[in-house]
Amino acid sequence: MPNHPSGVCIAVDAMGGDFGPEVVVKGAIEASQATGISLLLVGREEEIHKELAKYKTDKLPIQVVNASQVVGMTDKPSDVLRRKKDSSIHVACRLVKEGQAHGVVSAGNSGAILACGMFVLGRIKGVERPALATILPTEKNPLVFLDVGGNMDCKPYHLVQFGVMAEVLAKDLLGIPNPKVGLLSIGEEEGKGNILAKEAYKLFKLSSMNFVGNAEGRDLFTGNFDVIVCDGFVGNAVLKVSEGVAKSISSILKAEIRKSLLFRFGCLLALPVFRRLAKRLDYAEYGGAHLLGLNGTAIVCHGASNVRAIRIAIEKAAEFVASQANEHLVKGLKANKELAQFGKRAKA
Amino acid sequence: MPNHPSGVCIAVDAMGGDFGPEVVVKGAIEASQATGISLLLVGREEEIHKELAKYKTDKLPIQVVNASQVVGMTDKPSDVLRRKKDSSIHVACRLVKEGQAHGVVSAGNSGAILACGMFVLGRIKGVERPALATILPTEKNPLVFLDVGGNMDCKPYHLVQFGVMAEVLAKDLLGIPNPKVGLLSIGEEEGKGNILAKEAYKLFKLSSMNFVGNAEGRDLFTGNFDVIVCDGFVGNAVLKVSEGVAKSISSILKAEIRKSLLFRFGCLLALPVFRRLAKRLDYAEYGGAHLLGLNGTAIVCHGASNVRAIRIAIEKAAEFVASQANEHLVKGLKANKELAQFGKRAKA
Repeated sequence: MPNHPSGVCIAVDAMGGDFGPEVVVKGAIEASQATGISLLLVGREEEIHKELAKYKTDKLPIQVVNASQVVGMTDKPSDVLRRKKDSSIHVACRLVKEGQAHGVVSAGNSGAILACGMFVLGRIKGVERPALATILPTEKNPLVFLDVGGNMDCKPYHLVQFGVMAEVLAKDLLGIPNPKVGLLSIGEEEGKGNILAKEAYKLFKLSSMNFVGNAEGRDLFTGNFDVIVCDGFVGNAVLKVSEGVAKSISSILKAEIRKSLLFRFGCLLALPVFRRLAKRLDYAEYGGAHLLGLNGTAIVCHGASNVRAIRIAIEKAAEFVASQANEHLVKGLKANKELAQFGKRAKA
Repeated sequence: MPNHPSGVCIAVDAMGGDFGPEVVVKGAIEASQATGISLLLVGREEEIHKELAKYKTDKLPIQVVNASQVVGMTDKPSDVLRRKKDSSIHVACRLVKEGQAHGVVSAGNSGAILACGMFVLGRIKGVERPALATILPTEKNPLVFLDVGGNMDCKPYHLVQFGVMAEVLAKDLLGIPNPKVGLLSIGEEEGKGNILAKEAYKLFKLSSMNFVGNAEGRDLFTGNFDVIVCDGFVGNAVLKVSEGVAKSISSILKAEIRKSLLFRFGCLLALPVFRRLAKRLDYAEYGGAHLLGLNGTAIVCHGASNVRAIRIAIEKAAEFVASQANEHLVKGLKANKELAQFGKRAKA
């Protein structure tokens, strides 16, 4: 394995995302220019070449791999697996499986990426459930939050594995030596929460992690934790709620701006600060969500990703590979293997 | 039953909340002054009389009921039930049970209020699980959101009952004739979500409610729904996350204000708008959370409630009584009784 991003090759789903090749190809070029990462741009050749032709790319380590089919946002994951084997998502995953690339980045249909990740790349031995981890900005350092939608109904031991995988991400990608791991619940004390959280709490205490106890919703933003773990239903709901609050505050402010001239003037003066705030809260800053536990590296970007988000996602995928995160992940899982028996016995 | 708040009597836990009798008594006096509601202020007589003496209250229908014990924020609910029978929370609930008051309002230890509500007042016949409902401000109309912490692990039929009870609150307290009811999940389409959400979806479709489908996190603020239902673990987590986002945005803005003089000037001009925004997002505006499904009316206020929040909570409790919401609730539950068999069969 390479130990520097420049030796890494990432397969990029050039057809994915709301803006298609125009945005993805530009983001890919910028990532390669900045770091020297090799790229395989996967999708309809002609469309990709058309975009590439807009830039000077002859000296960049970028190749195009044709894939005739395109996955739509409403395609069912199972259909993509069976009937769209020549789609950009499917082919990109296959390139990783076949060793031609180390990782895959896609802003396409996230259900389809999860399915292709699971069934084309396959799980790392010992991983019961791959999980989707996102990096969130907080008032202090960024934090790893998972599962944000990969697994709806979980057993306590699944949450332990999520924690171990997220710990690796916090160490290798965020550079935190001994990440503080928390379990999302509805009160700080042990014994608070639903059956799943209470049973998981017992296992986390026995685990190799630096488990500091239950985290509450507020802690997603305080920065008092480096990793927060929950099941994929709660994680996804919570993430969408937090996006919702931010959007609502901004849309109410915009309506008020329209109403008041004085306020408009005030905001104009304050614009640089609002821009800094927006940057701190910008999810694009962290690329996309890592699909952890697969043989290979996979990053799922938001459908609305812009050029910058794509570029950062590709760079993060390469850093993940170069830091040998998956090897660390295997070690972490092994160290907590004996907890599986408790997790399977638990009622939740 | 009275059909106007002025005929209603509410027992108020005068010792509850972070600020104790000073704030609660003032809020109670204001509620009684504004609407003519009769009040029983429950707690340590001397302390309550000391507060009452600060105001002109001789013509108000306010009586003091002594309760020698005080419930601390760390007291276990089970201990309060067994060993603190002369606490303000316990006595206030008993006054409702004995017919001396129609409802109870407390800003004290919420676990203790839930326990006393459940075991002193008792459940309405047919209610499997009382639920805690909060009223949230949105970009359009306020919305009823539940369960926000009463029930950690739920069956699908429990969610149906929560929906029916919340529908009554939306009709009787918010004046919405045909509330749009949604189920919190992680995608709009049927079939999205965890086992609980998927099974509950089927029952909601069969129910008497105006069920409009799955709601997503974002919908807590859009105003596209009048009622949103989930289990108490998810509801509590989601509520704390949304408070967390708002607090974080405000604390980041404050830090920026300190840094930049120009921004400070801009914000000064914009102050009236920020105040209007804060008012729109102020939970105090809606008093507290309704504990639905009990024989009687119970409202749980935030520990940090100010005078205004206490006043509004008392008024809302009286409105709930006057509108005969519990009678409507019984009717609604009866209309959906046959769904219980499916709910009990479900796997979740």
